[in-house]
Amino acid sequence: MKSIVLRKMKVVRKIKRMQSIAWEAKRKGKTIGFVPTMGYLHEGHLNLVRIARKRSDLSVVSIFVNPLQFGPKEDFKEYPRDINRDKKLLEREKVDILFYPDEKEMYPDDFATYIKIERLTEGLCGRSRPGHFQGVATVVGKLFNIVMPDFAVFGQKDAQQALVIKRMVRDLNLPIKIIVAPTVREKDGLAMSSRNIYLAPNERKEATVLYHSLMMAREMIKKGERNPSLIIGKMREMIEEKNGKIDYISIVDTKELRDLDLIKGEVLIALAVYFGKTRLIDNIILKV
Amino acid sequence: MKSIVLRKMKVVRKIKRMQSIAWEAKRKGKTIGFVPTMGYLHEGHLNLVRIARKRSDLSVVSIFVNPLQFGPKEDFKEYPRDINRDKKLLEREKVDILFYPDEKEMYPDDFATYIKIERLTEGLCGRSRPGHFQGVATVVGKLFNIVMPDFAVFGQKDAQQALVIKRMVRDLNLPIKIIVAPTVREKDGLAMSSRNIYLAPNERKEATVLYHSLMMAREMIKKGERNPSLIIGKMREMIEEKNGKIDYISIVDTKELRDLDLIKGEVLIALAVYFGKTRLIDNIILKV
Repeated sequence: MKSIVLRKMKVVRKIKRMQSIAWEAKRKGKTIGFVPTMGYLHEGHLNLVRIARKRSDLSVVSIFVNPLQFGPKEDFKEYPRDINRDKKLLEREKVDILFYPDEKEMYPDDFATYIKIERLTEGLCGRSRPGHFQGVATVVGKLFNIVMPDFAVFGQKDAQQALVIKRMVRDLNLPIKIIVAPTVREKDGLAMSSRNIYLAPNERKEATVLYHSLMMAREMIKKGERNPSLIIGKMREMIEEKNGKIDYISIVDTKELRDLDLIKGEVLIALAVYFGKTRLIDNIILKV
Repeated sequence: MKSIVLRKMKVVRKIKRMQSIAWEAKRKGKTIGFVPTMGYLHEGHLNLVRIARKRSDLSVVSIFVNPLQFGPKEDFKEYPRDINRDKKLLEREKVDILFYPDEKEMYPDDFATYIKIERLTEGLCGRSRPGHFQGVATVVGKLFNIVMPDFAVFGQKDAQQALVIKRMVRDLNLPIKIIVAPTVREKDGLAMSSRNIYLAPNERKEATVLYHSLMMAREMIKKGERNPSLIIGKMREMIEEKNGKIDYISIVDTKELRDLDLIKGEVLIALAVYFGKTRLIDNIILKV
C-alpha cells in the first residue's frame, strides 16, 4: 500500500486535524502505526519508528515533552529538545506524519482527567517517581484517541512503562495492539536514552556497568542461582564500585511487578541508578 | 439509512464481538448512537433511547450495573434488575443492539485502570459518594471504547454525571459528542429513577417536594433573589417539612461546580435527599 511518490512528512500541530487525518485513513482501510516520543530522538526511537513504518500504511510519530510525567523536582525544563534535528531524522525515515502539539493544545487550563493504573505502578520507578505513570498513562491515552493507531510501538528499555500501557489498553478496551521492541544499546552496552547526554565523560564510561551487572545476573541465574537478594547484592556491589548511586534494583514477576522471593517463571530484572545527577534505567527479561 | 426490513434486536455479551460490529458499521460510514444504562429501564431511559435511534444509523444501548460506582455500603446488590422486561422495552423501541456484558467480562480479576476527574467530582454527589464518579468515568470510558459511538445520550437528572462525562471526553480527546436530554418526570413532578420503586407509598407522595422546591427556587430567582444561602434555606425548610433527610442542596456554576456566593451566569441547583432509606437526586439549570 506504500505510495511510490516521494511524500514530504506532514507536521500536524492540532488535535482536531490529527484526528481527521487518522479517521480519513481508517475509513479507507489503512492501518496506522504509532510511536509516541518525547523527542530528542536517538537510534532507540528510530528502531521503533522503522517497526511502525514497516507494519503500517500510515506511520505517525508524536513528539511531546509531557509535563504531567515529571515530578516537581525532576528535569522537565532541562529535558533535551531539538525539534529541527528530530524532524530531519523522521523525514529520513520516511515517516508520514509528525504530531507535534504544544502544551496548551494537550492540557487546556481546566484540564481535570487522569488515567491511573494501580499496583503495577507502585514499585520500581513508580516508587521513586510518584505520579510519573499516571502522567504517562494519561498522555498516552490521549494520544491513542488522537492518532487512533492500529498498533503502537514502545521500547523495552522502559519496561514498566510498556507493561503499564499494555494493562491500560486491556483494561480500557482500547482496540490497539502494543508492540514492545528490544532495547537498542551503544556498542559498549549502555542502553540508548535521551538523558545520556547529561553524562560527564567519566560518568558515561562508568554507566556501562548497568548493562554488565544485568549480564552478570543473567549468568548467575543460568548457573542455577534462584535467590533474588543474593543476585541483587552482587549487582549492587558491582555498580557502587563504579560510583553509581542506586535508586533501586528489583527482580519482579512480569505480570504485577511484585518482588520475588524465588526466581521462577518470567522475571524482570530492572534497575535505576544515578551517575552524578543523571538517573538511568535499564532491565532485562528472562524466562526461567 | 434505516432499513425497512424488521430487524430483531441483537443481544451482544462479549466485548470483542461488540467492537467488531461497531467497527464494521463505522467502516461502512454508519453513525452509532449510544445510551449507557444500568437497566431497569423507565420512560427517562426510553426518551434517551429514542434520541439515539432518531439521530443514528445504528443504535446501541448497554445494560450493566457497574459495581465500581457503588460504595461498599450502597445498594449494588439491591439495585433493581429485570433484564427480560428491559429487552422487551428496547425491542419495542427498535433498538439495534443491546450490549449486556457480565461483570467478569468488564472487570477481569487483575483489572487495575481507573479514570478520575478532579475538582468537578469533589462536590455535590461526589462528597457523599466518594469514588462514585471514578467508577462512572471508568465504565463509561470503557463502554465508549467498546461501542465506538459517534454520540452518546445522557439524562439531565444526573447533572453532575453529564458534566463529568463531558469533561472526560474533552480531556481525553474522545471523538464522541455528548447529548444531554431533559429530565423526564412523573405527572406530579417527581424525576423518573430506577430507585423510585424503593419508595413506600407515603414517601412516594412526599418526594414530589423535591421538584416543588426547585420550582420555588426558580421563582425566587426570577423575582430577583441572588443570595444562594437564602434560597437553599427556604428549600431546606420545605423539604424537611415533608420528612426528607437532606444530603445536600447546592447552587453551583455549571463549569467547575463550585458553590456560588452570588447567583449569576449559568447556575445548577442540585439536591440529594433521603426519603426513608432511598436517596433521590434532582436538579435544574438556570441562566440568570
